[in-house]
Amino acid sequence: MAEGAHGLLLDAAAQDLLFREARTVEAFTGEPVTEEHLRAVYDLVKYGPTSMNQQPLRMVVLRSAQARAAVVRWMLGINKTRTAAAPLTVLLAADLRFHERLPELFPAKPDAARLFEDPFVRKESARFNAALQIAYLILGIRAAGLAAAPTLGFDPEGIDKEFFGDGGHTVLTVLNIGRPAATAVPPRLPRLAYDDVVTEL
Amino acid sequence: MAEGAHGLLLDAAAQDLLFREARTVEAFTGEPVTEEHLRAVYDLVKYGPTSMNQQPLRMVVLRSAQARAAVVRWMLGINKTRTAAAPLTVLLAADLRFHERLPELFPAKPDAARLFEDPFVRKESARFNAALQIAYLILGIRAAGLAAAPTLGFDPEGIDKEFFGDGGHTVLTVLNIGRPAATAVPPRLPRLAYDDVVTEL
Repeated sequence: MAEGAHGLLLDAAAQDLLFREARTVEAFTGEPVTEEHLRAVYDLVKYGPTSMNQQPLRMVVLRSAQARAAVVRWMLGINKTRTAAAPLTVLLAADLRFHERLPELFPAKPDAARLFEDPFVRKESARFNAALQIAYLILGIRAAGLAAAPTLGFDPEGIDKEFFGDGGHTVLTVLNIGRPAATAVPPRLPRLAYDDVVTEL
Repeated sequence: MAEGAHGLLLDAAAQDLLFREARTVEAFTGEPVTEEHLRAVYDLVKYGPTSMNQQPLRMVVLRSAQARAAVVRWMLGINKTRTAAAPLTVLLAADLRFHERLPELFPAKPDAARLFEDPFVRKESARFNAALQIAYLILGIRAAGLAAAPTLGFDPEGIDKEFFGDGGHTVLTVLNIGRPAATAVPPRLPRLAYDDVVTEL
């Protein structure tokens, strides 16, 4: 790959698409988000690394009117109308039984599942690794030319009960996806400086 | 941006650099990782979104012989020698007092810090959002043409006590960074299929 910009190998257009120009928007155009979009995004971001290749992230795509109404009921404040208006809403959840697939996903250590027998350890690992995958997914949605609006403004117990009645999953984020409406891009919020974040020893 | 590949807008070379060809390697060449590299990476990934713009991730760059020896003592198993041999090792930690900066980082809600008065809620939020930022950072390191080898193979209480004696931070990942040694790229592990991960309602 040829030299990019800002001291990075990644080309400048890709930097802009994924980070510099991309924004968490507040509203979308009416253009639909298709299954083809989601498959293309997943086919890229599935390669993002997780600890012991756990891949605990699960997604529930709320496409029917009934499913959309069900999630809107559990959203809080402004997120109720924003979610009702979004072209597509996806629940991002951690699979609390991810360890059952480790023999297949991490064959180098056939007994890896035993490290996660403790439900607390397992939940912490599922949440951490699913969070990594949520970040990959946000960037993958941007890679598709779409905008992602993740929110934590919902009742997690309500959503878990409504959508994951078996207790085997826990919702981490509700993600609205669409083509950004030009008028709904809020000003960029400040970022911490390198020297605020990094200590060298 | 012109149409990319695989149904995405992102160009194919960028997809390969960040996801398709990038790998978690086991060893590196001797080429150093400079402060300029890290500043360029941070200047890109700082734009990755976090909930209420919290940005709880903090990094401790272990460059001195003394700091390197200190971290190697807390690494477990094979991670001891891998970390000792890496060109650069960085501790990735969550700042458990991130809320103190919210008035500046999220000015739209001047009392946002009050949502995080409960230390348990605050720690959960710090861990989740720092995990998002760790994923952005892994991709940013790849964007610089380097490889990131994140590991959880360490004693977290030991590292917290050694490096964050004030209790205000908690280590989430130890990250080795360098130019990948061609012989140290393990076979790609299997990824879950779209239909294993996604449910449509």
